[in-house]
Amino acid sequence: MKITISEYLLRRLKERDVNVLFGIPGDYVLPFFNNLLDGNHGVRHIGTCNELNAAYCADGYAKLSGFGAAAVTFGPGSLNTSNAVAGAYADDTPILIIAGAPAVQIMRTPTHRLLHHAIDTNFSANIDIFSPITCVSKQLLHIDTAPSEIDDVIRTCYQTKKPAYLEIPYDLQTALVDPPTAPIDLMLFQSSEQELTAAVENTLELINNASSRAVITGHLLRRENCITEGIEIVENIGATTATTFCGKLPDFEEHPHSVGVYTGAMSQTFTKEKIEGADLLLNLGRTNNEFDTGIFTTKTGKEQDVIHVHHDHVIINDQHFANVYLRDFIPALAEESRTITPVPVSVPFDTKRFAFQRSEAFVPTGNNLTIDRLFVQFANFLQEGDIVFGDTGGYINSSQTEFPANSEVFGCGNWASLGSGFGMFVGGTLAPQARSRRRICITGDGGFQMTAQELSTLIREKTDSIIIVLDNAGYGAERAIYPDKFRSYNDIQVWNYELLPEAFGGIKGVDCMSYVARTEKELADVFSNLDTPKGVHLIRIHLAPNDSATFNLQFSQSLRH
Amino acid sequence: MKITISEYLLRRLKERDVNVLFGIPGDYVLPFFNNLLDGNHGVRHIGTCNELNAAYCADGYAKLSGFGAAAVTFGPGSLNTSNAVAGAYADDTPILIIAGAPAVQIMRTPTHRLLHHAIDTNFSANIDIFSPITCVSKQLLHIDTAPSEIDDVIRTCYQTKKPAYLEIPYDLQTALVDPPTAPIDLMLFQSSEQELTAAVENTLELINNASSRAVITGHLLRRENCITEGIEIVENIGATTATTFCGKLPDFEEHPHSVGVYTGAMSQTFTKEKIEGADLLLNLGRTNNEFDTGIFTTKTGKEQDVIHVHHDHVIINDQHFANVYLRDFIPALAEESRTITPVPVSVPFDTKRFAFQRSEAFVPTGNNLTIDRLFVQFANFLQEGDIVFGDTGGYINSSQTEFPANSEVFGCGNWASLGSGFGMFVGGTLAPQARSRRRICITGDGGFQMTAQELSTLIREKTDSIIIVLDNAGYGAERAIYPDKFRSYNDIQVWNYELLPEAFGGIKGVDCMSYVARTEKELADVFSNLDTPKGVHLIRIHLAPNDSATFNLQFSQSLRH
Ligand SMILES: Cc1ncc(C[n+]2csc(CCOP(=O)(O)OP(=O)(O)O)c2C)c(N)n1
Ligand SMILES: Cc1ncc(C[n+]2csc(CCOP(=O)(O)OP(=O)(O)O)c2C)c(N)n1
Repeated sequence: MKITISEYLLRRLKERDVNVLFGIPGDYVLPFFNNLLDGNHGVRHIGTCNELNAAYCADGYAKLSGFGAAAVTFGPGSLNTSNAVAGAYADDTPILIIAGAPAVQIMRTPTHRLLHHAIDTNFSANIDIFSPITCVSKQLLHIDTAPSEIDDVIRTCYQTKKPAYLEIPYDLQTALVDPPTAPIDLMLFQSSEQELTAAVENTLELINNASSRAVITGHLLRRENCITEGIEIVENIGATTATTFCGKLPDFEEHPHSVGVYTGAMSQTFTKEKIEGADLLLNLGRTNNEFDTGIFTTKTGKEQDVIHVHHDHVIINDQHFANVYLRDFIPALAEESRTITPVPVSVPFDTKRFAFQRSEAFVPTGNNLTIDRLFVQFANFLQEGDIVFGDTGGYINSSQTEFPANSEVFGCGNWASLGSGFGMFVGGTLAPQARSRRRICITGDGGFQMTAQELSTLIREKTDSIIIVLDNAGYGAERAIYPDKFRSYNDIQVWNYELLPEAFGGIKGVDCMSYVARTEKELADVFSNLDTPKGVHLIRIHLAPNDSATFNLQFSQSLRH
Repeated sequence: MKITISEYLLRRLKERDVNVLFGIPGDYVLPFFNNLLDGNHGVRHIGTCNELNAAYCADGYAKLSGFGAAAVTFGPGSLNTSNAVAGAYADDTPILIIAGAPAVQIMRTPTHRLLHHAIDTNFSANIDIFSPITCVSKQLLHIDTAPSEIDDVIRTCYQTKKPAYLEIPYDLQTALVDPPTAPIDLMLFQSSEQELTAAVENTLELINNASSRAVITGHLLRRENCITEGIEIVENIGATTATTFCGKLPDFEEHPHSVGVYTGAMSQTFTKEKIEGADLLLNLGRTNNEFDTGIFTTKTGKEQDVIHVHHDHVIINDQHFANVYLRDFIPALAEESRTITPVPVSVPFDTKRFAFQRSEAFVPTGNNLTIDRLFVQFANFLQEGDIVFGDTGGYINSSQTEFPANSEVFGCGNWASLGSGFGMFVGGTLAPQARSRRRICITGDGGFQMTAQELSTLIREKTDSIIIVLDNAGYGAERAIYPDKFRSYNDIQVWNYELLPEAFGGIKGVDCMSYVARTEKELADVFSNLDTPKGVHLIRIHLAPNDSATFNLQFSQSLRH
């Protein structure tokens, strides 16, 4: 029996663990939405307040689940997602934006008619716009090839870890095609066997030659699901290990070999020494991005051997191994490195490895909260298994905070779009991987204001979640760029954040709760009730406008170009 | 004395009546923002909650003032504006988006560095993205030519009535140039004298031949500030006149010659007869867009002479007059038509010309509010001089509502992006033209949720404003597409809208007030206190989910492709 193209696409998405699809209907995409409700595919629709947030949700969902999707209408719907799509591109997260479009014949027939949601009669405007920020941006135009084109788009996303944009004309959304007969073939690019072997052998040789070894993690290790193998490598070879801004992987941070977070000049002294001083450095899936490199202040590879494991190639010192995929290289190295004699690593328990380190010595006082102590209190609050999303301003400090084992933390990445952290959080909470884990979002007030309405989706979907809003009445990360000068453009309207859950339809004490904390003790009280939170909990934390951690100041200063 | 390029640009904007510039800072654009605060140009910064809303504000400001501008950071900042920019393009509104960028040398030097806010090392990504939705999308790269390039961008916006996107690299923002010596020369394209004369003469001849004459207004008449001349033509030649969805101009609607709103098959019978039955029809600045034509159901030009006055050309029946600008043609025709003998026009006072017509007979009851009666009550509430913005869903019915003389109403245009109406409203309230006039936004709940946080800017800027939220718990315009079928994708989270002003930092009774109305009497009570409102007033109106005016049903049905 034939199925519609919409159904075909939805079944393929379900194969990729897309259980929920975010988005907002519009007349050009209604047949697709009808199928979303009525079809036999196991994908559930979740409405968001706007399309930007739908795409952020898809991104957050994909961060945990591997793949995410959102559906929107032609024109205003699709353009609303552009910033989130670019963010997914920069942070290597595969999401698919599905958009409606006018019927094929209408787009093909030259007229002077100006359709609504259209730019003149330029029906390729949207796909042109999405072209620089996607791995594929296209319209389906033929029934016959639609199924294979759909497979191709998903495969390309999956392999490149980049977002794609797919427009389906109105009439094609209900056109009938054969259902898939086998699971989608995800294989597009394969590593060259020869290059792979050579790269692994070369790496092993350098490891053997090195009497001290270090591993830095990047976000691609997470995207390619190679964390276990990465840990194996660390243990097999006896390496110290550090995480990064984009590749902050708590499993590495809580490993006994952990030396903290390495972000060039912005790292702790101990971390810097251990990473820059090792004879050999393995960069596992870390890209050469501004934030991971501490605004390009890394001092690595000067008197040490360096191996960069990129998405699709490996660079060993100056030698380039093309067509070697991280997803093949890391498991192979994990396997082969078993023969290596590990260098013993011991990091004293109380070494200062994070700007904000968990501390039993921390006792909450009646004093006003300050960034420097708040993030220690936050580190203490975190539990094993937690899932945390941080927004740009709120993530800068989180990135230097110690996270517990088995927790996961996702930040704004190098794209660093304000509002993305909270938007992604909403989608992330709905991923199956988040089930029965504590879900926390930590965001600056400025970032939160960008996408705040999505709190209503957290409430509607009856999520158990904690949202921490750091209220310093403005753009702290930017105030720190000119710390001595008052700049009114950094001041924002101060909201009564604690009133939002109810304003967005929550019922206090039933499905939501809010708190205001000004002192450490007040925050400790709030935290003490949030071991296993039910419903949506919003915590407004008051901070002084110019309060800034040393780390944050250093970070912001470097962005004063 | 030399001034910075930022200062040069700001002075040019001030010449175009840009008194306030909306936007959000970011490290790449900080020198520009510093100049915005410190410079000597008379432009004031207004922060918004996100960049989409900043661009909507610029659009709303431009709708009243003629030109608008917003400033944003590279990448996430600029992409966030894309949907609003496309809307300004589709609705012929000149706005300028100013974005920061990395320093010229950094963009020019090939490296493997991945800068934050950037797509790989593709530094033309943003300008490529904006290219299909702007009249100019470019980066400034040379100090020497920067001033003339800036003039050129503004001139092109002004002439084409389209938005532009301008990236200014970080270092160029403070580079020094000579200040402008004379006001910007706005002349780019001129009408051909010969074609203009011929077009006017041909038009006069057809007018003379016609024993009944009709005029339809489009939005370009407003954009080119030719309303007075348009009215002169109506009077000089003795024409009946109708407005449209995008070109809803109350001065025409309240003219004694008014026959209502002509939108093809969706018009009132009387309106249709008068417009389609005239011997001659003059379309003044109406484009051939889907909403103005009632989804392409206009029956004009079949047995009548038709003149289309477009932005840069005139079509008389089948004859094409190129290089004739509306801004030249309309005043010329107003002048020359004085010699015409007008046909007497008399429209009986109580003729049904609008779906929702002002009515002294309307008496508010204790019944629940319904769309059909609500918009009559709304028409009665409106006063001369009011400025009204309607959002997509909320505008569909407003477009068929009678507006009083000297009022102005702006809708979603043919781009019809949800959330734009409220976003534009925020900017519109801050235009000098809005001063001491009543400012009202009428929006569906779905549209409002998209950009709701900007309520906080209305409060912060201490505007006097009225926001009417039509709460039907979802997407009414879309429910009407399949009126007999429950589609869960049209249901949205129901907010307690009345709590929002306080949540966004307002102080009830001081700078904000909210109301909930379920019955006509309740609404009448609310309206009765809003003759000269002080502060921000939010009215939540409860409506039944499936309540839909006949007009709305017809409109939505036609969008079931
Ligand atoms: C969409 C977007 N707009 C602007 C910026 C520039 N920017 C970076 S950090 C920042 C301030 C963040 O403020 P907040 O979220 O309150 O966190 P804080 O720094 O105060 O902790 C801004 C405006 C951005 N990164 N993204
Ligand atoms: C950005 C955007 N997304 C989606 C749509 C499709 N759309 C058109 S009307 C509409 C529903 C409008 O609902 P609401 O604003 O509540 O007004 P109502 O129709 O209920 O009066 C939707 C979703 C759109 N026009 N713009």
